[in-house]
Amino acid sequence: MWNDNSFLKKEMDAVEYTIKNSLRTRNKTVKEALVRFAESGGKRLRPAFTILGGTFGQYDSNTIVPIAAALEIIHMATLIHDDIIDDAKLRRGNETVHSVLGKDVAVYSGDFLLTRAFMLVADYADIDMLKQIAKASAYICDSEIAQNEQKFDTNVSVKQYLKRIGGKTAALFGISLYMGAYKAGCPRKLVNRLGVLGNNIGMAFQIVDDILDFTGNQAKVGKPLLRDAAQGIYTLPVLYALHSEYREEAIKAINKTQEEKGANLYEVLDASKAIERSKNIAEKFIGKAMKIAGELPESIGRDIIMEIIDEQLERKF
Amino acid sequence: MWNDNSFLKKEMDAVEYTIKNSLRTRNKTVKEALVRFAESGGKRLRPAFTILGGTFGQYDSNTIVPIAAALEIIHMATLIHDDIIDDAKLRRGNETVHSVLGKDVAVYSGDFLLTRAFMLVADYADIDMLKQIAKASAYICDSEIAQNEQKFDTNVSVKQYLKRIGGKTAALFGISLYMGAYKAGCPRKLVNRLGVLGNNIGMAFQIVDDILDFTGNQAKVGKPLLRDAAQGIYTLPVLYALHSEYREEAIKAINKTQEEKGANLYEVLDASKAIERSKNIAEKFIGKAMKIAGELPESIGRDIIMEIIDEQLERKF
Repeated sequence: MWNDNSFLKKEMDAVEYTIKNSLRTRNKTVKEALVRFAESGGKRLRPAFTILGGTFGQYDSNTIVPIAAALEIIHMATLIHDDIIDDAKLRRGNETVHSVLGKDVAVYSGDFLLTRAFMLVADYADIDMLKQIAKASAYICDSEIAQNEQKFDTNVSVKQYLKRIGGKTAALFGISLYMGAYKAGCPRKLVNRLGVLGNNIGMAFQIVDDILDFTGNQAKVGKPLLRDAAQGIYTLPVLYALHSEYREEAIKAINKTQEEKGANLYEVLDASKAIERSKNIAEKFIGKAMKIAGELPESIGRDIIMEIIDEQLERKF
Repeated sequence: MWNDNSFLKKEMDAVEYTIKNSLRTRNKTVKEALVRFAESGGKRLRPAFTILGGTFGQYDSNTIVPIAAALEIIHMATLIHDDIIDDAKLRRGNETVHSVLGKDVAVYSGDFLLTRAFMLVADYADIDMLKQIAKASAYICDSEIAQNEQKFDTNVSVKQYLKRIGGKTAALFGISLYMGAYKAGCPRKLVNRLGVLGNNIGMAFQIVDDILDFTGNQAKVGKPLLRDAAQGIYTLPVLYALHSEYREEAIKAINKTQEEKGANLYEVLDASKAIERSKNIAEKFIGKAMKIAGELPESIGRDIIMEIIDEQLERKF
């Protein structure tokens, strides 16, 4: 994915190397499971953003690459704990870490990755960066808790959903771009602007992901469709259906999702224009992101960010 | 427990306040469960050691108390994840966090506490301290993973056990004393010596705890006896029995532990002198700790540390 640009390819290879190096643990089985998980083909958007953020200032590979790797490792840790809780068997078409290691060891493996990430940050960042990264991590946990509390609650509002994904996804995207720019010594205003850009991309990214849970192709998405709805996690399309005149049908449909493979749910989403409305919201965040990106100083980083927004978001639906 | 000394009482009250303040999360149920867990009466040995370590130098409450609180919060996070994995219903006579919140939310609550601890450290410590605390945390996870991997393995050696508790318990005790002294600007040699002292106390503490799992009084210990053995976690007494001439009887006995309430196991432990031999090892660590403590500069901190060793370890069996 990052092969088009030789600079980015080189840096992303270094990120990959740093991530693998951080997975060293005394236990071979755990190490192998984590390496396999690392190799299972995540897009590495977060570290890519850190590197791209760094191109707006004095780029230094030695310090930016470890921070980029740490942010991806935090992401990996949350995925491992998410998969335990969702009891997911597959992620990106591969067995999840807890399927391989058992839930017990998987809980500690997630903890291990989280502390490893902080070790990397401590080695290459200053205290201010560490504060922000720890704060973003706490925000992620907070939002994961909110998501769990909101399970099977048909009264969750769109606002609550947006707040939840703001923590669950957007915060880490924001901090990724922010950290690269900060570490590269960009002026404060530019650093903040890149943080806001990352947040908007993250919001759009999560909404698009949630839409693809209904409209996507299972092979491409890399996980079973309709899983969220079946597990009582009501994302934007379902929430729009629930808060439409089709509320009663929507409640019936989501209750049946698991057995009947969502046929009814698709009808309700269609009737209530829920997918369309969700796409509109995604478009708003994409538009905002494109606007901010367009106003950035001309640079290779800017061009690649705009390409990512186009490829990963715009063209997804 | 810390009421005998007015300085220590004041500082421990401040630690308590800082811990509670760190439990703030958007979710009320989670916050309440964490506050109840915090109030359920842990001994707070780790933060006490940080404070006591600080008395060997220029003690500054404003910076040492938050570090002490952070170390206890890391401990709390590991307890929450441990209890999930052990499926423990009770801790210190109270319902465990996952019994109250469900396992899903409890996993994230542990993560939340871990990141909160790093936020506190980042606010009040320097990068070097953070590195060491992150390293100790990774070591804890590593050892928890080892403990899980060694479950039901009757070939685990005493050496493996000691290594495992070195990470699971001793590392955090060591870093607690170390951090207090470091933050108070003690000379490097004294800082290191206090770290070693904490490690020895931690080793003794865990071995004593493991012995009490067999010889203790359930009400005092605050958790069901023989739980470890029933769950396949073989601690020092069981390992001594397993590596004695009573190996076969020991294997039979531990396999029966759950149904027959350990009657056979007690016989084997007795016959193989396993408890006695475990006590000898504990005594070695206690002796080493007392020796190091005795050679510390004369101070209130030294006296209280020696009292703790006496009360919490020496007099426990």
